[in-house]
Amino acid sequence: MSTCLVPRLAVVGVGLIGGSLALALKAAGAVGEVVGIGRGRANLDKALELGVIDRATQDLAEGVRDADLVFLATPVLSLTEVAATAAAHMKLGAILTDGGSVKGSVAAAIEPLLPVGIHFVPGHPIAGTEKSGAEAAFATLYHGRRCILTPTAHTDIGALDLVRRVWEIAGSSVVLMDVEKHDRILAAISHLPHMVAYSLVNAVGSYDRYEENILEYSAGGFRDFTRIASSDPTMWRDIALTNRDALLEMMERCEAFFAELKEDVRNGEADKLYEFFQRSKELRDAIVK
Amino acid sequence: MSTCLVPRLAVVGVGLIGGSLALALKAAGAVGEVVGIGRGRANLDKALELGVIDRATQDLAEGVRDADLVFLATPVLSLTEVAATAAAHMKLGAILTDGGSVKGSVAAAIEPLLPVGIHFVPGHPIAGTEKSGAEAAFATLYHGRRCILTPTAHTDIGALDLVRRVWEIAGSSVVLMDVEKHDRILAAISHLPHMVAYSLVNAVGSYDRYEENILEYSAGGFRDFTRIASSDPTMWRDIALTNRDALLEMMERCEAFFAELKEDVRNGEADKLYEFFQRSKELRDAIVK
Repeated sequence: MSTCLVPRLAVVGVGLIGGSLALALKAAGAVGEVVGIGRGRANLDKALELGVIDRATQDLAEGVRDADLVFLATPVLSLTEVAATAAAHMKLGAILTDGGSVKGSVAAAIEPLLPVGIHFVPGHPIAGTEKSGAEAAFATLYHGRRCILTPTAHTDIGALDLVRRVWEIAGSSVVLMDVEKHDRILAAISHLPHMVAYSLVNAVGSYDRYEENILEYSAGGFRDFTRIASSDPTMWRDIALTNRDALLEMMERCEAFFAELKEDVRNGEADKLYEFFQRSKELRDAIVK
Repeated sequence: MSTCLVPRLAVVGVGLIGGSLALALKAAGAVGEVVGIGRGRANLDKALELGVIDRATQDLAEGVRDADLVFLATPVLSLTEVAATAAAHMKLGAILTDGGSVKGSVAAAIEPLLPVGIHFVPGHPIAGTEKSGAEAAFATLYHGRRCILTPTAHTDIGALDLVRRVWEIAGSSVVLMDVEKHDRILAAISHLPHMVAYSLVNAVGSYDRYEENILEYSAGGFRDFTRIASSDPTMWRDIALTNRDALLEMMERCEAFFAELKEDVRNGEADKLYEFFQRSKELRDAIVK
């Protein structure tokens, strides 16, 4: 036990993200004991039963007390409050990290609250499915995925190195990036597409020119395209509230392209339409290789 | 041979759509001979080799001459010209149908060109994948899918009935609808999502604030969401040109929802954001059941 990378890991929020990290580190023999902390007893019991965690508690202060590493995997808007309570009860030298989808506002809110001797490393594993809860967790979720860590001027180098090794052991390729860049890139590749999908489904689903539900006519393309519109509304409300500026920049950018396309449709611009679609196809085909 | 539903079928454009109908009717014993007509010899040879068709020709007039049913499965903008040539060489009483994604402008262009005694039934099987060519065809493509037929005031009832039976034998559930309604519903559930996906990929893919290609950071969600942006630019140019009014109506509708969401993001309207996402999730979850 004493020779493993993380003798005691505390996971706050034992769902897909938190549970999968615990399972990955267990599978690699890189963790001693895993303490699961959450508000719902049923989910904690399920996590115990499935072997995702070794011990469960609904008491955050108690759960983090002896941990060497505390991983916060709760919704973005709750992170500051959870981090403040956790940090106040962690042992000297322990490391706090998180998996929140937004980093700038989170890091700015958490860092001033940290007691001396508690190290914080803001992180974001780029992985997930639309499922949730301890039952959704699996050891290979992070295999082959990227994990972005966003150290700030206050981040301890030793703590950063440990968190990096943790994600590498979980199978991820770790990228370091400043928080602003992280938030802009995620706004582009993740937050904007969710806003687009939610808007599209609302626009089409509320179209009431005909009596029947026109979504009944949709085929596989529409269902695949709109899968992300089934994502958790609370999670996405939090992201929209905490990454506002970067998200607005990308929403305006997308609006401009859509408006250009609409004008080409209106004016029957055959060549411009072809060129618009072809350019998009090339960009998209390049990422699926 | 003489007792099957379609003694001789001619398929113009032996790709995913045309080839799959031929295979489905062959599998059901509902067709005698299948004649494949196309411009590319290599694709026709492949179709012969795979047993999708029994005979191949690059000469449209010759290919349709003895056919009882001619199925046009070529790009939307080519349909009128192909239909005119085919109809001029078909035998009296033969039936012409198509699989074009837009129906109003197609039916309006083709009907005045038909010689007396040649029956036209506009149709649209709602099925497809992003693949193309004879190799992509398979007998079960239409199983469990809808096929919309859009008879007009000029459509012969007997011809309509035969085409309906053909699609039912191919495994589809046939829906009759007027052309305008078809075009508006397809604009909503298919054409609009493609415009949105193409715009999104262009907006994100051309974002050049950072040196690297930010699409490299995209995970499965982005790839799934943008799959339809890899669709054939020619096909989508044709659809955008031929279903302009219905498409513009839906694009403006989508813009309005997106603008509403953007204002809620700008103003940090937590409750409105949650409600917007929740409504979309409910609409989308209802279609995947």
